[in-house]
Formats: sequence, C-alpha cells, structure tokens
Amino acid sequence: MDRETLNFSYDKIMEMEQRYRATFINSITGFKSLALVGTIGKSGGTNVAVFNSIVHLGAHPPLVGMVIRPDSVDRHSLQNILETGYYTINHVQESFMQKAHKTSARYPKEISEFEAVGLTTEFISDFSAPFVCESKIKVGLEFKEKIPFAINGTVFVIGEIKQVILPKASVHADGFIDLVQAGTITNSGLDSYHSVSGGKRFPYAKP
Amino acid sequence: MDRETLNFSYDKIMEMEQRYRATFINSITGFKSLALVGTIGKSGGTNVAVFNSIVHLGAHPPLVGMVIRPDSVDRHSLQNILETGYYTINHVQESFMQKAHKTSARYPKEISEFEAVGLTTEFISDFSAPFVCESKIKVGLEFKEKIPFAINGTVFVIGEIKQVILPKASVHADGFIDLVQAGTITNSGLDSYHSVSGGKRFPYAKP
Repeated sequence: MDRETLNFSYDKIMEMEQRYRATFINSITGFKSLALVGTIGKSGGTNVAVFNSIVHLGAHPPLVGMVIRPDSVDRHSLQNILETGYYTINHVQESFMQKAHKTSARYPKEISEFEAVGLTTEFISDFSAPFVCESKIKVGLEFKEKIPFAINGTVFVIGEIKQVILPKASVHADGFIDLVQAGTITNSGLDSYHSVSGGKRFPYAKP
Repeated sequence: MDRETLNFSYDKIMEMEQRYRATFINSITGFKSLALVGTIGKSGGTNVAVFNSIVHLGAHPPLVGMVIRPDSVDRHSLQNILETGYYTINHVQESFMQKAHKTSARYPKEISEFEAVGLTTEFISDFSAPFVCESKIKVGLEFKEKIPFAINGTVFVIGEIKQVILPKASVHADGFIDLVQAGTITNSGLDSYHSVSGGKRFPYAKP
C-alpha cells in the first residue's frame, strides 16, 4: 500500500499551472453542498445554475449563504437575484446530475439554462422564482444582503428561507431531513458528483 | 411508495419548536464540507473543533472561508485564530468521526479538545497551528480577514492556504484530489456522518 504523502507549500501552489491549481484547490475543501439555484429576471427570463458553495448561516431566522463569482456564469444568477429579490435552492439527485453540471456552461443571457440542459421550471404558490421540478428538496429564499469580499472579488449572498418543499418520508420525528432517502448527492472538486449512502447519527455531545 | 410532499412556509418554520427547527434548517443546505479546525492560543493551549461550514472562495490566491458562531463552542477557535493568525483544516475519516463529533461539546477553555476526545496534535515544519495527526488531508491556513454578519451575529473568517499535506495516491494527474480514496466523509444536519463512495466526473461544460 502506498502511504507516501505530499507536502505543498504556498509557493508550490502558486507555481501550479492555472487549471491544475483550480482543480486542486477546489478539491481541498472536502465534499460540498451542491444545489441548483433557480432565478428569474425582471423581464421574465429564467436561469438555473449549479452552485457548490451553499452554507448554513442560522436557523432562527432561517438564513443561508452562498459565494458567487461575479466574473463567471454565476453573474446571471446574481443579476436576477438583485432584480427580483427571490431565488430557489434545489437539491440535485443522481438522475439529473449531468444536466446540473451542464448549467455551468457559459450560455448567453437570453437563453434559459432550464431549456438548454433539459430541466423543468416549476412555479409554486405565489413564489416568484422558479423551482427545479425534478428536485425532491426545494427551498425558496428572499434576498437579504450582498457582502462583497474585497480580497478576491467574490460576493457573499445571504437569503432567508421562505418556503421548503420536500418529501414527507424524508423528515424524521425530530426535524432531521434524511438526505439519503431523498437522493440528494454531493460533489467534490469542479466536476465530480457522488451519491451518498448510510449515515450515522451521534447524540448531542457533552464534556 | 409514499410520494407525499410537505410544504413549509416561513411562518410554519418560525413556529417550529427550537430544537426541531435547528435540526431541520441545518439539514436543508445539503451535505456539508466537514472538517476539524485546529488552533493554538498565544499561551500554547491547543483546540480542535468540528466545522461544517467550510467553503471554497478562490484558487489564486488559494482562499477558504468558514462561518463561525461566536456564541458557541466555536468561540475558542476564533479567539485562537485572532491571537496567533494561523489555523488548520483537517478532513475527517470514518475511523475518528465519533471523536470529531465529540469536539462539539462545550469544554472549558483550559481543556484541549485534542486530549478530551482522544485526537493527536501534529506540528509540521514551522507551522504554528496544530494539525490533526489522524487526518489524511491537512491544510494549514493564515488568517486574512474576519467579516461580521450583522444579520445574525455570525462571523465569516477568510484564510489563505499556506500548506497542504495529503496522500500522494489521492492526487490525480490533473490536480483533482480523490476524496473517496482518502476516506474523507461528509455530514448532514447537526449530527449525521456519511461516508461517500464512487464519484462521476463530467467534462468542462460548454453550451
């Protein structure tokens, strides 16, 4: 068994070929919270984009954060969120993970990624932003705050959860949502998608 | 097969019992980037705490963000990071996931969670913060910026990657790190730990 380890210094990382470094550093933060973000512009054009930087911020009020790179395909999502104030976060299942990945291509603004990759918009109740019909766990959010990170030009977007739609069978008696039951997958790096199984819960930790 | 769905409005979420809501909302962001954060205070006391809010910020320079709740057990980690300017992010494997979970208990400041839960500090080269010896993928970071989120009192900490130690066998020719090979696990909700298998990579997406 090969137990050899590598040790990369900051200088070695900065000397890596650009694409190699992007792949390497995108892998180093572990498995990521993968989701499709659904938006609509003020002129009615819809957009869906894959994100892997969703992060829990708080439960009361229910707040979710995500990192957006304004120079990337994310920019259409950000524009729409700022125009209309609402967006959706939709979990990805194995059955449409390839379509989810394809939303990362640079489509022109006038093309809906929903149509381009073959995903279905779903409008629920009076919520203005489109959900992804294929997704089993869907979250509707209201935009709250945009925090620019001067250090590298990324933007942190905070939203408040306004609606949650999910399978009844995935919700346990204590509020825990069984993501394995719902078929939610995770990803790593820039382009690797993984299904998850099992799961072991531990009791609330005390010293 | 039970296909019934539930639809929770904002009001229903706010009316949930507090612990139920925390469990529910912590589950809704999908599988999370799980890691042990190792720190040391200026007086030399070490600390290790489990985090599930690690997020990739950028590759050039290599930046990582994480959300810290200053009213929680995270506060000792934050204090140490601010005192010494360095910290480590260590992936969690199944073999010590229970120990990782136990670091979430509220130990007094003078107790090292390393000793309390049975994990081993490892000091590598001249990096001042302790790594977790048991972890196969270890990242050393320099504190760059602390951004307080007024909306709920959480703090976003940005660090720059200074060192990466990992198994040679987990690094592919294009820089992709095979987290499955390294045994990195993920978590969901507040207390559920999942091993990950397989993984399907897709080519760079073009319209």
